Amino acid sequence: MATKAKIGVLGASGYTGSELVRLLLRHPRVEIALLTADRRAGQEMRNVFPQFAPFALPTLVSIESVDWKTAGLDLIFCALPHATTQKVIAAIFAAKPDAKIVDLSADFRLSDPAAYAKWYGHEHAATELQKQAVYGLVEVYRRDIKRAQLVANPGCYTTCAQLPLVPLIKAKAIDLDEIVVDAKSGMTGAGRSAKEAMLFSEVSEGFNAYGVGSHRHMAELDQEFSKAAGRDVVVTFTPHLVPMNRGILSTIYVRGKRGRTAQDLHEILAKQYAKEEFVHVLPFGETPHTRHIRGSNMTFIGVAKDRHEGRAILVSALDNLVKGASGQAVQNMNLMLGFPEAAGLEQVALFP
Amino acid sequence: MATKAKIGVLGASGYTGSELVRLLLRHPRVEIALLTADRRAGQEMRNVFPQFAPFALPTLVSIESVDWKTAGLDLIFCALPHATTQKVIAAIFAAKPDAKIVDLSADFRLSDPAAYAKWYGHEHAATELQKQAVYGLVEVYRRDIKRAQLVANPGCYTTCAQLPLVPLIKAKAIDLDEIVVDAKSGMTGAGRSAKEAMLFSEVSEGFNAYGVGSHRHMAELDQEFSKAAGRDVVVTFTPHLVPMNRGILSTIYVRGKRGRTAQDLHEILAKQYAKEEFVHVLPFGETPHTRHIRGSNMTFIGVAKDRHEGRAILVSALDNLVKGASGQAVQNMNLMLGFPEAAGLEQVALFP
Amino acid sequence: MATKAKIGVLGASGYTGSELVRLLLRHPRVEIALLTADRRAGQEMRNVFPQFAPFALPTLVSIESVDWKTAGLDLIFCALPHATTQKVIAAIFAAKPDAKIVDLSADFRLSDPAAYAKWYGHEHAATELQKQAVYGLVEVYRRDIKRAQLVANPGCYTTCAQLPLVPLIKAKAIDLDEIVVDAKSGMTGAGRSAKEAMLFSEVSEGFNAYGVGSHRHMAELDQEFSKAAGRDVVVTFTPHLVPMNRGILSTIYVRGKRGRTAQDLHEILAKQYAKEEFVHVLPFGETPHTRHIRGSNMTFIGVAKDRHEGRAILVSALDNLVKGASGQAVQNMNLMLGFPEAAGLEQVALFP
Amino acid sequence: MATKAKIGVLGASGYTGSELVRLLLRHPRVEIALLTADRRAGQEMRNVFPQFAPFALPTLVSIESVDWKTAGLDLIFCALPHATTQKVIAAIFAAKPDAKIVDLSADFRLSDPAAYAKWYGHEHAATELQKQAVYGLVEVYRRDIKRAQLVANPGCYTTCAQLPLVPLIKAKAIDLDEIVVDAKSGMTGAGRSAKEAMLFSEVSEGFNAYGVGSHRHMAELDQEFSKAAGRDVVVTFTPHLVPMNRGILSTIYVRGKRGRTAQDLHEILAKQYAKEEFVHVLPFGETPHTRHIRGSNMTFIGVAKDRHEGRAILVSALDNLVKGASGQAVQNMNLMLGFPEAAGLEQVALFP
Repeated sequence: MATKAKIGVLGASGYTGSELVRLLLRHPRVEIALLTADRRAGQEMRNVFPQFAPFALPTLVSIESVDWKTAGLDLIFCALPHATTQKVIAAIFAAKPDAKIVDLSADFRLSDPAAYAKWYGHEHAATELQKQAVYGLVEVYRRDIKRAQLVANPGCYTTCAQLPLVPLIKAKAIDLDEIVVDAKSGMTGAGRSAKEAMLFSEVSEGFNAYGVGSHRHMAELDQEFSKAAGRDVVVTFTPHLVPMNRGILSTIYVRGKRGRTAQDLHEILAKQYAKEEFVHVLPFGETPHTRHIRGSNMTFIGVAKDRHEGRAILVSALDNLVKGASGQAVQNMNLMLGFPEAAGLEQVALFP
Repeated sequence: MATKAKIGVLGASGYTGSELVRLLLRHPRVEIALLTADRRAGQEMRNVFPQFAPFALPTLVSIESVDWKTAGLDLIFCALPHATTQKVIAAIFAAKPDAKIVDLSADFRLSDPAAYAKWYGHEHAATELQKQAVYGLVEVYRRDIKRAQLVANPGCYTTCAQLPLVPLIKAKAIDLDEIVVDAKSGMTGAGRSAKEAMLFSEVSEGFNAYGVGSHRHMAELDQEFSKAAGRDVVVTFTPHLVPMNRGILSTIYVRGKRGRTAQDLHEILAKQYAKEEFVHVLPFGETPHTRHIRGSNMTFIGVAKDRHEGRAILVSALDNLVKGASGQAVQNMNLMLGFPEAAGLEQVALFP
Repeated sequence: MATKAKIGVLGASGYTGSELVRLLLRHPRVEIALLTADRRAGQEMRNVFPQFAPFALPTLVSIESVDWKTAGLDLIFCALPHATTQKVIAAIFAAKPDAKIVDLSADFRLSDPAAYAKWYGHEHAATELQKQAVYGLVEVYRRDIKRAQLVANPGCYTTCAQLPLVPLIKAKAIDLDEIVVDAKSGMTGAGRSAKEAMLFSEVSEGFNAYGVGSHRHMAELDQEFSKAAGRDVVVTFTPHLVPMNRGILSTIYVRGKRGRTAQDLHEILAKQYAKEEFVHVLPFGETPHTRHIRGSNMTFIGVAKDRHEGRAILVSALDNLVKGASGQAVQNMNLMLGFPEAAGLEQVALFP
Repeated sequence: MATKAKIGVLGASGYTGSELVRLLLRHPRVEIALLTADRRAGQEMRNVFPQFAPFALPTLVSIESVDWKTAGLDLIFCALPHATTQKVIAAIFAAKPDAKIVDLSADFRLSDPAAYAKWYGHEHAATELQKQAVYGLVEVYRRDIKRAQLVANPGCYTTCAQLPLVPLIKAKAIDLDEIVVDAKSGMTGAGRSAKEAMLFSEVSEGFNAYGVGSHRHMAELDQEFSKAAGRDVVVTFTPHLVPMNRGILSTIYVRGKRGRTAQDLHEILAKQYAKEEFVHVLPFGETPHTRHIRGSNMTFIGVAKDRHEGRAILVSALDNLVKGASGQAVQNMNLMLGFPEAAGLEQVALFP
């Protein structure tokens, strides 16, 4: 086998960072060459995530200490907080114009500077790059991703909603003004920051909605659904927290258009995803559990009939840290570096 | 204080049965005089539920062994499986025509024999009693309950959906054809039967919808919402399972009618429940967590604005074993026996 | 009924504080007159713990703002961090020499200033008070507590280990050099501070020991066991974290002395606790679950035979926030104010 | 690459069966050729474990329907209940004397028919095979396993206790009469049978010991520890249930012999396992979490000093379904078929 591609992971002390390391460690074509974690610089990965103790990994360094020009990285994953990200990525491209980057933050997901400013409350600091970034929902933008230098990896909630909805919107099969996305996520979606509301005792044995009526993920949904529809689409979206680590399940209420039944919608999705390795449409009437995709890059989609004639209920499930973040990021890397799309992503779900 | 009322609990080996015992043990006006559990007859309650080991309780007996005429019970709680229930209750009334019963099963919730037969797949065995039964949603039927001999305690999912929706439907404040109820329940709602799908390892660290498109609770919602509206109302309803023991949270999507805004809906609910002891409406825009009502008889209701002008998101939360079952049953008992409505139900939620 | 006693809770924004409020709200003889929470001063309790939204409670104030002399408090619970506590309590007694205080911190549990300095790394700031403080393990020190002005409420781990061991040590029934206490605690034992290691995603679906070989609770065990034995006793103690909110279970390995069998040990404990309301000894050979004491002030103790002739395994379980903290504190208050010992503590465990 | 080995899995509808399928599906040298599940015969694996829906797998058949002579299997995993197992395996060897089998049940772990009869309450039905079976603890019996036809895969609890203890016993470094093993397991260790005590609502948010004083796993520990010591060794062992799916953690209390300190014990273990791929000894004083080995074949071992001079606390952690069952079984298969020992077992732990 040829020499392995050298990969950097910025922000290795967070959950999407560690998930990248988990996947890359077993990827046959790559080598982890750089790991950064500003607050943990100088420490070993095993001090931050003890599961890596048995493996040889580079010592954590600060971003500042890296010379992008000479680092010899074939691709960089950026798993940093939003806002910080745009500055770091601008600096990387300034030092190394031919860099390839998959960004897991929200910073380059919105292509419209005005939309970014509205939802994030400040101007984007790298609007030129914002234009060039390719939105990394592989099943929709595969071709563009292959040629991209900067890929904006989609959000976890939005991937889970887009995979079932985009094909239906493109097929003009559903009413665009009646879409309700009721989404439920495990706790890793909230990251690894030490906040009271995320303590075990605050979360365990309970359930709640949050950001009801207004949540930043809406901006990403608006952009992609409107693009698919060729007109403005504004969905109703409510996120909830489930006392579990991994997994997102979206229950989506739609109304068929022009006589489309739930079964018709199922057929559109089944056809669309028949050859996709990481999207699996269940038989009509069956709906997925998050536990059956845990730890894998798979998305399961189910379609069922509502009691109301002409309405359908879609249920989609994925692992927010894999297909909803680091797995999809590796899938993007595979396309960008010309590897088989599924390389390093073959793991079967861990259930129970 | 006067002599205490003698109470029987049929089906004491299930979760609603043990929850009744928990509440009645600390109720100042009652005495637990009879506990039945057919398969555990002859055993002590402590063998079935070790938490009761420190307390003196009657030995479990079989239903068959009870002579209803001479048992001297002032009120009977019936926490038996549906279908069995109607036969047992018919037998009790036959032996003791002045019996008072609160039934926690689904058997007397539907007043229409045809609806019962449709949803349960067989004819009702006690249609006379079905007519006399009063639906025990206290906040709606308080007056009728005070005079009732047979109260059908509402379902947990349906209580959680009715408390926020019935006042809005009665006020003609929302569109009746656009109601979506996305409900999430803890595992005790499924009871204590040993089924593979309910094992810890099958449930923990995962989330799923079930009964998508068709679920028996719909019949009860149809009946009560239609009654409130004065016309047929058919809501979309999807139940989900949360890896927690107790709690139901319903996220309800509605559209205001005749210019009613989310804030108007909030005002209707706040006014409606201002004096209710067990329904608390949160300030506008806030939504509840199930953990904050765990173990208590409280229902928390929140109302928030949707992004879509004119639409609102209602979120209601209760403990399925308390306000959703045994707590509401005790509330019904209090009314039927002339006790203060909140007697024995004062416990504050157990959080964390 | 006579006027109610006025009670203050210092540190109401933590878990032991909120648990005190939960219990006191339903206590027939007291009234919550003061709640402090320095960082949340000016807020309502419902902003800090939404489960209290339906109840009328005093607004949170800072400790500094209270005038102890004129506050008219009959008893004060102090649920503050250690070290801070000794200064606050010294100040209270300085302003109001006849104050009555139950302290839930570790500050007054050790009566020996040298032991305190050794385990906590600094001199005690109120050694005079340290001498006067009564150790609040009710079942052992009931008489002293009734006359005390300052009671040091025992730790949760130590209560769980002392209740089964102290009677055996006093009876000289077990070998003092061979005691192993393997203890497992739910997460609320770690408090409400926002630390990475306590996040849901770090704790859920996992188990670990911590502080292996050295843990501050040992000091308290050393003191009390040595006192009971009349000689130095040093036990082996390992704490573990269980992914649950509430509960401690201790598995204790002992060797009978002078021919004492496991059954003899069981008999000693059964006799000792026969009349105690909050300690229940299970039949010989049965061992407890934490879930059966959750939310109650009960301790369950089991004794079983080891395979090794002459050795026994003791298992004790309690709720760390109730008998392990706030429930025991209320029990202490009841003694100090002359109320029935069980007042406000009658709640049956919440299972499931 | 050469043709792949054809593998059969008997008992594919249980957790160890599905875990074998998970691992074998990604093993580079094998092909799953047969899956049995008597009660689910005729169904697809996806009906029993939906996580396999995207993968092509043989239809489930009954054991009875298999012709062992002509099935062409290179190796068979037997994941059946004990007692049934010995009959099935005897039948396979009768039909195909050169069969290779890894048995995951307890049936061939005890080599002494008398010990088997004592602990299991009936005579062993295949005592000839019992003699030939090799105990499959790879790190101890690697050489024998390579030449074995029938390997008895060790139990999960016992693997977790043996890996830290066997080297210390062999080195005569610890007192053999003072060993206490306090073990804690996730729920999958109890299998997939529908029992009330294993329901989510019975297990969640609680902790308990079980089988205190007497548990079948002791027989296996007795055999292996006595063999290592060259004399009878009887340890004290208490299993507990943790509300989590996967993982075992053993806290082991030992006393060093002939002046051996905790550090000496650490050194023995570190040296012993320095080259083992699946046993990792942490730095002295650190102890493991189960979450850091979840889903991997790794065992983590920590050694800490007890307060008592000369005593040590060992803590070991593994995933009961991987190193404690199916992963170790695949490791055994790799040895028996001449594959690299780690083939198919490279997965990094899934945390969080």
